[in-house]
Amino acid sequence: MKKVMNKPVDYVDEMLDGLCAAHPRYFTQPEKRVIARTGGAVPGKVGIVTGGGSGHLPIFTGYIGPGLLDAAAIGDVFASPSSEQMASAMRHADGGAGVLRLYGNYGGDVMNFDMAGETLEMEDIASTTVLLADDVASAPPSEAAKRRGVAGMVFAFKAAGARAEERGDLAEVTAAAQKTADACRSIGFALTPCIVPQAGKPTFTIGEDEMEMGMGIHGEPGIWRDKLKPADAIADEMIDRLLEDSGVGRGERVSLLVNSLGATPLEELYIVFRRLRSRLSDKGIDIVSPLVGRYATSMEMAGVTLTLCRLDSEIEHLLAAPCDCPFWRN
Amino acid sequence: MKKVMNKPVDYVDEMLDGLCAAHPRYFTQPEKRVIARTGGAVPGKVGIVTGGGSGHLPIFTGYIGPGLLDAAAIGDVFASPSSEQMASAMRHADGGAGVLRLYGNYGGDVMNFDMAGETLEMEDIASTTVLLADDVASAPPSEAAKRRGVAGMVFAFKAAGARAEERGDLAEVTAAAQKTADACRSIGFALTPCIVPQAGKPTFTIGEDEMEMGMGIHGEPGIWRDKLKPADAIADEMIDRLLEDSGVGRGERVSLLVNSLGATPLEELYIVFRRLRSRLSDKGIDIVSPLVGRYATSMEMAGVTLTLCRLDSEIEHLLAAPCDCPFWRN
Repeated sequence: MKKVMNKPVDYVDEMLDGLCAAHPRYFTQPEKRVIARTGGAVPGKVGIVTGGGSGHLPIFTGYIGPGLLDAAAIGDVFASPSSEQMASAMRHADGGAGVLRLYGNYGGDVMNFDMAGETLEMEDIASTTVLLADDVASAPPSEAAKRRGVAGMVFAFKAAGARAEERGDLAEVTAAAQKTADACRSIGFALTPCIVPQAGKPTFTIGEDEMEMGMGIHGEPGIWRDKLKPADAIADEMIDRLLEDSGVGRGERVSLLVNSLGATPLEELYIVFRRLRSRLSDKGIDIVSPLVGRYATSMEMAGVTLTLCRLDSEIEHLLAAPCDCPFWRN
Repeated sequence: MKKVMNKPVDYVDEMLDGLCAAHPRYFTQPEKRVIARTGGAVPGKVGIVTGGGSGHLPIFTGYIGPGLLDAAAIGDVFASPSSEQMASAMRHADGGAGVLRLYGNYGGDVMNFDMAGETLEMEDIASTTVLLADDVASAPPSEAAKRRGVAGMVFAFKAAGARAEERGDLAEVTAAAQKTADACRSIGFALTPCIVPQAGKPTFTIGEDEMEMGMGIHGEPGIWRDKLKPADAIADEMIDRLLEDSGVGRGERVSLLVNSLGATPLEELYIVFRRLRSRLSDKGIDIVSPLVGRYATSMEMAGVTLTLCRLDSEIEHLLAAPCDCPFWRN
């Protein structure tokens, strides 16, 4: 595992420069570590802001665009942005209809985004918060509010973005985000760690023939570590855990996100998807518009996360609504 | 490096099953290892067929769709499909206006596709061939016809597909493909190997602190192997080699494809793109619609390929034309 980079200290800033240079139609960097839509906030539309540590592309920046997000504050790799950067992102997203903060449940991000919200309140910009807490491996159902946010975020971005694009008010956009966040359950497994540039060493160690089920996207400990199992057995365990946790059953409709953490190739995601589809078909559950690819990564970590999004007619409509960004295709 | 798979012998077939199941709107598998557009050939349109070994997603299958390809024959990992599979793909692509075979310059693929063309000739289906030979590291300019085809293929797919969508005839579609193939130059470097499932071991060995410039996508030997250099130095060497080989200079317009071979994360592609943009700007060369991502991979290999596509008004128009597939966005 080797990094293509210059000085580790410049990793994030050079990455953001390149990202904005490659996608000028979508976003710009009006201030350091603050990414906003090209052309600025949309008057009269609820703004949607996200943010968190770097190292998870396309999360966060890649989902800024019409029908999706308006701005993001970006921290160092796996580290929270500052509350000032978050407040700035909120100002850039503000079109006069309020701002939703939509992000993952990590301590530093929550503290800083809450402070940013207080700052904006003094500037008479109304804002709300919806936290993603979809990683079922990170806490039991009885403590679901402690769960970390992972790839389910992508579904929530899409649904909230669509509701805002339809000119829902702040309460309506917040409700769509919360409903979608509540509809998502995720679990992942890791095969190899990644390297945080400024640390220069792997985030964890794991045997050459081992996997860890339930590991978090920053290397947080999982549920079990054992020999690498066949893809079908892994897929079965993941989907069964999500079905049990969510209560989704026969006759329901779901979307799935089969997501590589980075190094695991598309070929293997499709092998996993094949089994998931067969298993859900056996259970009488329909898959609608699955996503298979790299939507929320940990740089070069090998592993896969699976997100189940329980659909109702509203969420299904919002996920299918038009949008335009480099990393979600409708 | 660990694979998420079941039996190695089932890797390709399970992958193709999952791929078609995930994207039913775009393609189906009418015969084993033959992927064709959902809904069949388009009457009156020139069909475009590609093919080659598995292990390079989204190449080949991922580029089937309106404005792009019509069918593909898929071999084992890094191995040619059979001439029968290629002939079948051509029949599925045939809308009565002839078929273009558009693929990379590898011995097995050329032999089998030529045989497939002869088979189709006996069935009164006209066909032509355009080979991609864009990898400048694989042979000197004096032997350019010996060069291997790599990610430049994606530009040729797009241009030929657009010309066919405009209802160009077989000669016109072939000319557009040839012109775009001729306009492309690529070079890559590798940091780590990948594992071919049925071999079960890495395709090559390389030191923990080493890179190999010019290595082929199947691990073919490159130009030099040395300590891993900073991203900017690598970017400079790659673009300078491509500029020299192509003769592209001040005042010209190019597109770039900065492509991860698999494990190298998007973050690092953007760091490379940042430098390329700055260097081309200094030389007075404009970059139009760059592509940054995973367009032609070698499963979990770490490394990057760079493709330079020299534009004229025709190629620029064809690359910008509408299309619809899971892996190219216009």
